[in-house]
Amino acid sequence: MGEVIFMINIAVLGYGVVGSGVVEVIKKNSLSISRRAGEEIGVKKILDIRDFPESPDRDLMTKNADEIFDDDSISIIVETIGGIGAAYEFTKRAFSCGKHVVTSNKELVATHGPELLRIAKDRGVNYLFEASVGGGIPIIHPLYQCLAANEIIGITGILNGTTNYILTRMKKDGEDFQAALKSAQRNGYAEADPSADIEGHDACRKIAILSSIAYNEFVDYKNIYTEGITRISTVDMEYAEFMDSVIKLIAISKRVGDKIFARVSPAIISKNHPLANVEDVFNAIVVKGNAIGDAMFYGRGAGKLPTASAVVADIIDIVKHTDGVGGYVWEKKKYNNVMHIDESETRFFVRLVASNKEEAANFISRTFEGVDFVKMDKPGLQEEIAFITPKAREGELKAKIMQTAGIGAVSAIVSTIRMEDE
Amino acid sequence: MGEVIFMINIAVLGYGVVGSGVVEVIKKNSLSISRRAGEEIGVKKILDIRDFPESPDRDLMTKNADEIFDDDSISIIVETIGGIGAAYEFTKRAFSCGKHVVTSNKELVATHGPELLRIAKDRGVNYLFEASVGGGIPIIHPLYQCLAANEIIGITGILNGTTNYILTRMKKDGEDFQAALKSAQRNGYAEADPSADIEGHDACRKIAILSSIAYNEFVDYKNIYTEGITRISTVDMEYAEFMDSVIKLIAISKRVGDKIFARVSPAIISKNHPLANVEDVFNAIVVKGNAIGDAMFYGRGAGKLPTASAVVADIIDIVKHTDGVGGYVWEKKKYNNVMHIDESETRFFVRLVASNKEEAANFISRTFEGVDFVKMDKPGLQEEIAFITPKAREGELKAKIMQTAGIGAVSAIVSTIRMEDE
Repeated sequence: MGEVIFMINIAVLGYGVVGSGVVEVIKKNSLSISRRAGEEIGVKKILDIRDFPESPDRDLMTKNADEIFDDDSISIIVETIGGIGAAYEFTKRAFSCGKHVVTSNKELVATHGPELLRIAKDRGVNYLFEASVGGGIPIIHPLYQCLAANEIIGITGILNGTTNYILTRMKKDGEDFQAALKSAQRNGYAEADPSADIEGHDACRKIAILSSIAYNEFVDYKNIYTEGITRISTVDMEYAEFMDSVIKLIAISKRVGDKIFARVSPAIISKNHPLANVEDVFNAIVVKGNAIGDAMFYGRGAGKLPTASAVVADIIDIVKHTDGVGGYVWEKKKYNNVMHIDESETRFFVRLVASNKEEAANFISRTFEGVDFVKMDKPGLQEEIAFITPKAREGELKAKIMQTAGIGAVSAIVSTIRMEDE
Repeated sequence: MGEVIFMINIAVLGYGVVGSGVVEVIKKNSLSISRRAGEEIGVKKILDIRDFPESPDRDLMTKNADEIFDDDSISIIVETIGGIGAAYEFTKRAFSCGKHVVTSNKELVATHGPELLRIAKDRGVNYLFEASVGGGIPIIHPLYQCLAANEIIGITGILNGTTNYILTRMKKDGEDFQAALKSAQRNGYAEADPSADIEGHDACRKIAILSSIAYNEFVDYKNIYTEGITRISTVDMEYAEFMDSVIKLIAISKRVGDKIFARVSPAIISKNHPLANVEDVFNAIVVKGNAIGDAMFYGRGAGKLPTASAVVADIIDIVKHTDGVGGYVWEKKKYNNVMHIDESETRFFVRLVASNKEEAANFISRTFEGVDFVKMDKPGLQEEIAFITPKAREGELKAKIMQTAGIGAVSAIVSTIRMEDE
C-alpha cells in the first residue's frame, strides 16, 4: 500500500440495488481497487430520501444534496437514482460543480446523452455509463476503446435478462408466456409491472446507447422499432425447435449507407448462431468490426454486484486517467438518422390458419417468390400453414402478408416472427 | 477532422502477417482511428531484413534500425518480429530511447515480461500487448481495466485456434488427429511444424500472461503443467459425445491460497459449459470475478486483421492517455508461486483394456471411492472399461490409476482425460 497516498472521495446518489452494491464493492475489494486505480477510493456521502437505520452505511447518509455538491473534496458522483427527473438535474448540477459522473441510468443516457456529454466535455469532466448496458459485462468501454481500430459494421445482442429468462423457460419447460412471466416474477427476475422488459423498451434504450457509441452519432431510441415478446407462443417455440433454431429477443443495429438501421424484436435464430446458447438471465452482445470480424461479450446483464462492478470500473478509469476518459460527444443529426423499419430487409416466419389449404398454399407460392413451407406434424395444426418468406424489404413483405390474410382461403394470421441470420 | 492537429508517428518492426496487418488497418480506418485517438496516426518506417519490392509500403521500408531509434519524431514502436532474440533487444532499445512499445509477441511477454514492464515503468513509457492473447479479442484491457473492481477468482479459456480447429474437425467429421491436423495445415490454420500449437505451448504462454495480470504477480509459463492434444482419439470424442460433453484444449488458472493453480490440457466439458460451443479457430475466455460472476469474451483468436486490430487499439490507448495506460509491473516471487499439478484437484475420465472385466471393475470400485462407470455400446470396445473418478488430489488419482494398470486383470490404460466443471 506504499504507493497509495491520496484519497479520492465519491458520493452515491440513490441507495437502491445498484447504489448499495457500489458501496459494497468498494469496501469489499478496496485493496485491489486502490492498486488498480493508483489511489484509495472512499465513499464519503450517500444521498437518499429514505431512511436506512439498519444499513452499515447509515453514517454516510444524507438527505441534503448540498452537503455533497458543496463539498469540494468529493470529485466523483455515482448517480444510481434512475429515471430522467432528479437524476437529470443532479447530473447537470454535478457537472457545473466540476464533478465527474458515473451512472447505470440507461434511460437518462438514452434520453439526454447528447446534452449531458456535451456539458461534461465543455466542463472537462467525465460522464461514464458502462453499467447502463449489459450490467457487469464490459461492453461500452471495449466498444469505444478496445475496438477503436475498427469501423463498426453492426451490433446484435440479447440485452434484456428478464425476457431471455422467460423465453428460456418457455423453451425448456414448455411453459406459456404468462406462466414463464410468473416464474420470472417469483424468482425476482421480473418486476411487478414488467412492461418495460417484456415490451422491449429496456432493450431498445440499450441498443440506442450502443449504436450511438458505435456509429459516433446519436441514435434516438424513440425512432427505433420495438416489439416485445408477449405474443410468442409455445407453438412458435416448437416450430423454432423443428427448424433447429431458437426464439430470442434480439436487439440489432447496423450502418446502412448514411442511415442507421436499428430494431428490437423477437427473432428466430439458428442454433449455430453465437447468441443461441445465451440462456436464463444472461446477456450477450456480438460486435462486428471491419478488422476484428465478430467479437462477443457475455455475462450477467443485471444484478447488484455485477452492475456495481461496472460502475466501479468507470470510477477507477476516471481516477487513473486525469487527462480524461470518454471525451466523446454524440452528434445529434437534424434529420431522423434511423432507417424506417419498412425500409429494412428481413425474412418473416409466418403461421396462418387456412380454410382451404391448397388454395392458400398456391396463393402464397405465387405471391412470395421462393417461399419455404415448414411442415411440422403436430395434432391441432392440421389447418395451419407455416412458411418462411424470402429476404425482401420489410414493407413489401408486410403488404404481401396482409394480402394473403385477405383471401377467402385464409382465416387468420397466427404469427409473424422475423428470422435473423447475422 | 478539425480537431486533428498533431501527427503521431509510429514504426513497425517486422513486416510479417501481423506487422503488415497493422499498416493496413491504420491506412484503412484512418478516419475513425484519428477520431478515437484525438490525433492522426501514421506509419513512418517499417523495419525488415527482407525485401518487399511489390508491397504498397515499400517506400517506408528500411533495414537500418538506427533510422527508427534515432528518429525523435517516432514515439511508438510496434514490435511484430516475434521470438525472444532481436525482439527483446529492440524492445529494450526502444524504452531506452523513450519510445512506447506495442506488441503481439506472447513469447517475449511471457518470458521477459517482468523485466520489460519494470524498465517501461521506470522510463515512463508504456509496454502494451493486447494482441498477445486472443488475437483480436479484447481480453487484457478488459481484464485489467473493465474488471478492475473485481478480485479475479479464476480464468478458463480456449486460447489456441489451431487445436480448437483440429478438435472441431475430429468431433464433427469423425477425422482422427492426424487427418484433422493435415486439414488444419491445408487451410492455413496450422504451421508446417505444428508442435507449439498441438503440444499446448502456445496456450501455456497465453494463460501465463493472463494469470500474471489477473493475480498481479508474475506467473512463469515454465512452471505451468502443459499437455497437448496429440493423444486424443476419435473414440475419446465418441465417449465425450455419449456423456453429452465435448473435448477441448482448456487453459485454466485460479488462485488457491497463496499459490496459483494453472494448467493447459485437454478436458472433457459438458455441452452446457459456456466454452463448449466455441468451435473452429475461435477462442474464448471466461473470467470469474468476485463481483461480476462469469464474463466471457469470444472472437477470432488469430488472423492478420483481428490481431492487427488489437495492436492498433493499444496504440490508440497510448495516444489518448498521455498520463500512461498500463503502468503495472509483475512482481516476480522468489519462490515458485505455481501449485504443482499433483496438488491440484481434478476428476479423470479413464479408459482401459481388461483381460478380466469383472475383476478389473471390482478393483476399480474398491480403489476409487464413488466411481462412475461409463457404458457405451460400440463394436471393438467389448474389452474396455471406462470410468470417471471422483474429485480428488491429482497426485492421488494418478497413483491409483497406476495401481489399477498394474493388476493382472488390466492389460493397458488407453486414455486419461481430465473432466472440467468450471
